[in-house]
Amino acid sequence: MPSPISFTSRSTGFGRARLGRLDTPHGTIDTPQFMPVGTQGSVKALAPNDLRAAGTQILLGNTYHLSLRPGAERIARLGGLHRFMAWNGPILTDSGGFQVFSLGHLRRVDDDGVTFTSHLDGSEQRLTPERAIEIQEALGSDIAMVLDELVDPAGRPSEVADALARTHRWTERCLAARSRPDQAVFGIIQGGIDPALRHRSAEQTKDLPVDGLAVGGLSVGESKADMAATLSIVGDVLGDDQRVRYLMGVGAPPDFFMAVERGIDLFDCVLPTRVARNGQLWTWDGRLNLRNARFLDDDQPVDARCRCETCQTFSRAYLAHLFRAEELLAYRLASLHNLTFTLDLLAELRASLAEGSFAALGERITRAYSR
Amino acid sequence: MPSPISFTSRSTGFGRARLGRLDTPHGTIDTPQFMPVGTQGSVKALAPNDLRAAGTQILLGNTYHLSLRPGAERIARLGGLHRFMAWNGPILTDSGGFQVFSLGHLRRVDDDGVTFTSHLDGSEQRLTPERAIEIQEALGSDIAMVLDELVDPAGRPSEVADALARTHRWTERCLAARSRPDQAVFGIIQGGIDPALRHRSAEQTKDLPVDGLAVGGLSVGESKADMAATLSIVGDVLGDDQRVRYLMGVGAPPDFFMAVERGIDLFDCVLPTRVARNGQLWTWDGRLNLRNARFLDDDQPVDARCRCETCQTFSRAYLAHLFRAEELLAYRLASLHNLTFTLDLLAELRASLAEGSFAALGERITRAYSR
Repeated sequence: MPSPISFTSRSTGFGRARLGRLDTPHGTIDTPQFMPVGTQGSVKALAPNDLRAAGTQILLGNTYHLSLRPGAERIARLGGLHRFMAWNGPILTDSGGFQVFSLGHLRRVDDDGVTFTSHLDGSEQRLTPERAIEIQEALGSDIAMVLDELVDPAGRPSEVADALARTHRWTERCLAARSRPDQAVFGIIQGGIDPALRHRSAEQTKDLPVDGLAVGGLSVGESKADMAATLSIVGDVLGDDQRVRYLMGVGAPPDFFMAVERGIDLFDCVLPTRVARNGQLWTWDGRLNLRNARFLDDDQPVDARCRCETCQTFSRAYLAHLFRAEELLAYRLASLHNLTFTLDLLAELRASLAEGSFAALGERITRAYSR
Repeated sequence: MPSPISFTSRSTGFGRARLGRLDTPHGTIDTPQFMPVGTQGSVKALAPNDLRAAGTQILLGNTYHLSLRPGAERIARLGGLHRFMAWNGPILTDSGGFQVFSLGHLRRVDDDGVTFTSHLDGSEQRLTPERAIEIQEALGSDIAMVLDELVDPAGRPSEVADALARTHRWTERCLAARSRPDQAVFGIIQGGIDPALRHRSAEQTKDLPVDGLAVGGLSVGESKADMAATLSIVGDVLGDDQRVRYLMGVGAPPDFFMAVERGIDLFDCVLPTRVARNGQLWTWDGRLNLRNARFLDDDQPVDARCRCETCQTFSRAYLAHLFRAEELLAYRLASLHNLTFTLDLLAELRASLAEGSFAALGERITRAYSR
């Protein structure tokens, strides 16, 4: 069947960096782009109006969480995930694989699928490639991810290779199981930081009729140098493949520049909103920790250059007070700011690619966030 | 000095119910009116934009909480409470007395003031009538409350009478201590549910040059009949006194009608937002408990007649899910709804006074909230 999405991009002269547009059934996305994460049907502390005000073009939803609670079939009866969470723009769902391997108590992986117990109630659950697609079709996301097996790069080489081969077979089964003409399916390149395994996985995934290519299994503790080297290998294998490329789970400010230069178009990460709830605010000059006592008397906005409601309305002193008083408003205002900053950073990154100032902007952000 | 506020009202033919307008330095309030409570410089989970969208005309701030954290003098250095919390409309502050007697560990009451330990860090604190006014002048509210002593109606009659006499002397000291020409000061009628004490306190307070008359010490466990009888006594004593009348700490839907009929113009209460955070949503047909499992599949809005963002955007099923998943967004959406409902209920109450349908509306709401 024809792909439900289309991606057009042009190279920019900065390594493999591309500027592009991704058309989906629920709207168009400028790339490189960042996807806020709506783990349980909500980007924590934020409403759809907040997400739009921050400049969100596409959201990520978590299949693992949504299928356990409130349940994918329940969401389908209620009109699908877009209607359920009142987000009319594009949504990408993951397959649940990452959470099964990291959050749930894993019981057994076999060639057919994976058995695990729910972290909510201990009930036994089963996920197969076919079920992962079925759940995502019930949710009705614009882009579904294949079920992959997380590879532990520190495992025995034969185990790592087996997991990779299994992910490849599961990808083929996901593609065979799809039935919705309005939902794209992305493949996932695994292999940890082992150059040979990454190379093999990238080649295998590239040869499959997936609608987009994701890079998984990074930002799990490896060094920035290892992440960069791994993305370089993937970039070399994919070459001028015209499908959209998505780096899963990465979202620290300097990482965007490193990864875009190696050909990445899409990112998702809980980092901006998670650190916000701990009082860490991101600015164009680096991080602020609002739990520091010196901010209690600081009448300035978080970032004078920021357009968000938080910076246009409140002082650092007020936010520092809200965090100390554990007021719920603190989490919303900080999340709104960090998300606005992250999405504006990606907009600036795109502008810098168009204007030829990508390297300078990347150096400035990397310096500000190395402190 | 001339009063910094002015109140005009007309009687409506329903008991002592009045329709009025209260002018303050930061704006005009239609009465009867409800004041959301911003305990620690924030109406829990809501931003000023939310408060405006809900129809808020005046906020209440808590002197006890704000003076302990972040400190009244700090707020003064940061430009006052209006600027600190980015609320440009009218603000009323309480004196801290109620919290000292109910939250803090009371150490000693003497004729000069009260010594207590902070519930935050156990530090010894001192509040006198003069200091209560000094704190509220530092905060810069439009309306300050006098320091009163909470009377335990179950105490020995001589103790109750002593507390009443002390509150009367403290009120005179508060009036002598005031120095801001842009801040009104309200007296507080105490006396529990003892008819003779209430009568005496109302007469004494009425004779003082306060800018408004508050009724304190109710909604602390007495029956609805006792509350109504007490308000009737106060109403009889105040007669056609033209100052604005404020019933402190009352805010359940049927209470508004009972109290307005007895001459009350202003209300404040944490109830609408507190029960919202527990999943209890108020509608024109009564209460909904969104923690009930039947709402997980209910695609209707909380109240189809409500104009708030929550009802215009989301289903009961989505809110029920957010509460079960303990998502922060649940608390904001529920608070926004209950506050909008409460403020719309007061608007309907005012309209019913103007149109002659006050009794019918009061009966309808009382019936809906007796279930």
